[in-house]
Amino acid sequence: MTPQILQAVAPAAGMARTHGIDAARYWSALMDLGAITDPLQPWTRRSFSALFIEGRDWLRRRFDQVGLCTHVDASGNLIGRIEGTEPGAGCIMIGSHSDSVPGGGRFDGIAGVIAGLEVVASLADAGKRLRHPIEVIDFLAEEPSEFGVSCVGSRGLSGFLDATMLARRNLQGETLGQAMLRMGGRPARLAQAVRRDIKAFFELHIEQGEVLENATLDLGIVSGIVGIQRLALGFKGQAAHAGTTPMHLRRDALAAAADLVGWVRQRAIELSTGTHYFVATTGQLGVTPNASNVVAGETSLVLDIRSSAQAMLDRFVDELQIGALAIAESHGVELARFDPLSSTAPARCDAHLMTLLRESARALNYGAMDMFSGAGHDCAFMSHIAPSAMVFVPSRAGRSHCPDEWTEPAQLAAGVATLYGAVCAFDASAPL
Amino acid sequence: MTPQILQAVAPAAGMARTHGIDAARYWSALMDLGAITDPLQPWTRRSFSALFIEGRDWLRRRFDQVGLCTHVDASGNLIGRIEGTEPGAGCIMIGSHSDSVPGGGRFDGIAGVIAGLEVVASLADAGKRLRHPIEVIDFLAEEPSEFGVSCVGSRGLSGFLDATMLARRNLQGETLGQAMLRMGGRPARLAQAVRRDIKAFFELHIEQGEVLENATLDLGIVSGIVGIQRLALGFKGQAAHAGTTPMHLRRDALAAAADLVGWVRQRAIELSTGTHYFVATTGQLGVTPNASNVVAGETSLVLDIRSSAQAMLDRFVDELQIGALAIAESHGVELARFDPLSSTAPARCDAHLMTLLRESARALNYGAMDMFSGAGHDCAFMSHIAPSAMVFVPSRAGRSHCPDEWTEPAQLAAGVATLYGAVCAFDASAPL
Repeated sequence: MTPQILQAVAPAAGMARTHGIDAARYWSALMDLGAITDPLQPWTRRSFSALFIEGRDWLRRRFDQVGLCTHVDASGNLIGRIEGTEPGAGCIMIGSHSDSVPGGGRFDGIAGVIAGLEVVASLADAGKRLRHPIEVIDFLAEEPSEFGVSCVGSRGLSGFLDATMLARRNLQGETLGQAMLRMGGRPARLAQAVRRDIKAFFELHIEQGEVLENATLDLGIVSGIVGIQRLALGFKGQAAHAGTTPMHLRRDALAAAADLVGWVRQRAIELSTGTHYFVATTGQLGVTPNASNVVAGETSLVLDIRSSAQAMLDRFVDELQIGALAIAESHGVELARFDPLSSTAPARCDAHLMTLLRESARALNYGAMDMFSGAGHDCAFMSHIAPSAMVFVPSRAGRSHCPDEWTEPAQLAAGVATLYGAVCAFDASAPL
Repeated sequence: MTPQILQAVAPAAGMARTHGIDAARYWSALMDLGAITDPLQPWTRRSFSALFIEGRDWLRRRFDQVGLCTHVDASGNLIGRIEGTEPGAGCIMIGSHSDSVPGGGRFDGIAGVIAGLEVVASLADAGKRLRHPIEVIDFLAEEPSEFGVSCVGSRGLSGFLDATMLARRNLQGETLGQAMLRMGGRPARLAQAVRRDIKAFFELHIEQGEVLENATLDLGIVSGIVGIQRLALGFKGQAAHAGTTPMHLRRDALAAAADLVGWVRQRAIELSTGTHYFVATTGQLGVTPNASNVVAGETSLVLDIRSSAQAMLDRFVDELQIGALAIAESHGVELARFDPLSSTAPARCDAHLMTLLRESARALNYGAMDMFSGAGHDCAFMSHIAPSAMVFVPSRAGRSHCPDEWTEPAQLAAGVATLYGAVCAFDASAPL
């Protein structure tokens, strides 16, 4: 399916409304918030920083303009709310995050927050009032923060932010709890602040991969979000003279690590051909002493393993341990470390909300596919407390977390319009 | 053959002479010079340092005590000379180096310098005067120096120290030429100072490997010294999100590097089973960005390839280039770098001098084998201007360039006694 419709929504002054939303207004807001960046390292708006607060001030003014009532919740999330026509109904929440990685792009995160704003603005333009309350949310600190914790706000709101995490300190010695207080959060009230009133959560996000671009499709309807297992491995051999140590007497820790990198890749390729999403990466490797004339004595590796199925993560880790021990033995080295660093379970998106997104896209003639998210998102935590769904828009060449991250205005408009349609459909059909 | 004789030469006060040399005197001198070390990082006596000069002052006093006439040559080598009975005869030179790597051992280098001293002292004890002049040499800066040049003194004496090397600077901005001047050398006179009057060069050295220990032999008669080829390789792929990039869309520079490490090892194992000495090592590997959640975009490797045969070095490098290109292609990455960094040709030891060493060992009932040196030595440069030979003594567990470098006193005595016998045999038999 070719994205013919997309040609119609190139942003231009005075551009007509498209599928209920104002694509030019959306793009212009996106560029405005994106411009709040460290000028020396575009595009950077780190959580808890002065620039982050400046971005939130900008968001508050926009929330005001579209008639949202704004507050900061216990987890430090910025939330704008507009009541619905039915008293006591649970809310529809739409959002993402406004923080960025250092030297990142202009789309990751804010595309989803401003999508929420555009849905509310478009409803107002159309003089439409929903039955359900609607909330637009800017989650606090989705990207890995200086405290070594990611998805701070969505963890907090869903009950996954514990005291150990709150006690973590940044380089300046501030705890995460103190930093949340500084953002207007009340970390002491987290336990009572887990939300149970959300009837539907929607998040629009850039894909951060090249699946949609390669498939020449407009949208991805996210079926779930990967579970992530991180492992630290180490091999200990014997540092030795590269000239005087014959090949058969070596205990080469780098040769063992190289075999492991190959094993991980080969097994991941095999597992990725099945129905479940599966990727495994060795992205980090350290060599000691790392000198050209010394056979490596030690190596350390960090592995990142992701899947839509917890059973596949477990199976891979089991097989990996056996494989790593066999590799160690074949090189006469020791498997000195095999430690899980972190583990997040896979999350499922809500089938009904996915159907609504799929039908909305079809009605607007956008090409869409169901797909799994290989990246973590706030939506993964939200899925534990509410029916949740995500819509992906394409990322040019799959690039993300870098300044050349890019999505065309028309591609974003397709996502926002689809989201708008799904929100309206949910509101109309959901039992109160 | 078991080293029975070695039991007799354990160092002890007043110990009797063994095979013409004084093992206790030798050991005691070795320990004394070794003690001149950086106390915070034993055992360290870096070339050109104050400690190095202190070591040389200690050597000068010893040279005086055994009746040697001492001077520093144009290359900064410390040389002690005693004339022979035949006027105008070429000289017999014995020596090695007194500098060390940082945090090295107490044997590498000084074992050979003090062996020269012990030969001269033993001749004096025996009231023997050789027909040839004899020179004991402490070569300047054999270990890789702060100037990025190794074997400074033996390169200079043999005509292999060029103006580019002399112009290299250390971190303080001093040139190698200036540092040589500081040691008493005269770098401006290097061209005229190449020695043509050396009839035999002998060097005793620790093996720095575990071949002799594994073979339970006392001595290695070195047949040659490896040629060394160093190469820098780089792969350039595409840094990508470890979660959102499916296995089949990756251009993983670390996966390519891992395959290369495996290729190098496998091919080296195959080539090392032949008659020629061959080892190849990937000891240095850099990964960019080296983050656990990013598919590696770039990798850089430094390879160290050593062989007794130049043809094998050439063949390996040719095959490597084809292999590296194939690996790059299979991973969809680019072989961005394939650069020779340095190249030293293999050196051959003199067959006649080897025979003299072998016969001397046999006469003293030491177990010896011919072996190739996988480490570079001053002897490699000396072999270009004079018949040259080396004798190796065992290194415990093959350890070297580290504080636990060790050779038993009796094992050293076997080497010195064998050297003494060979020097006497050469002097007696060589035509003047």
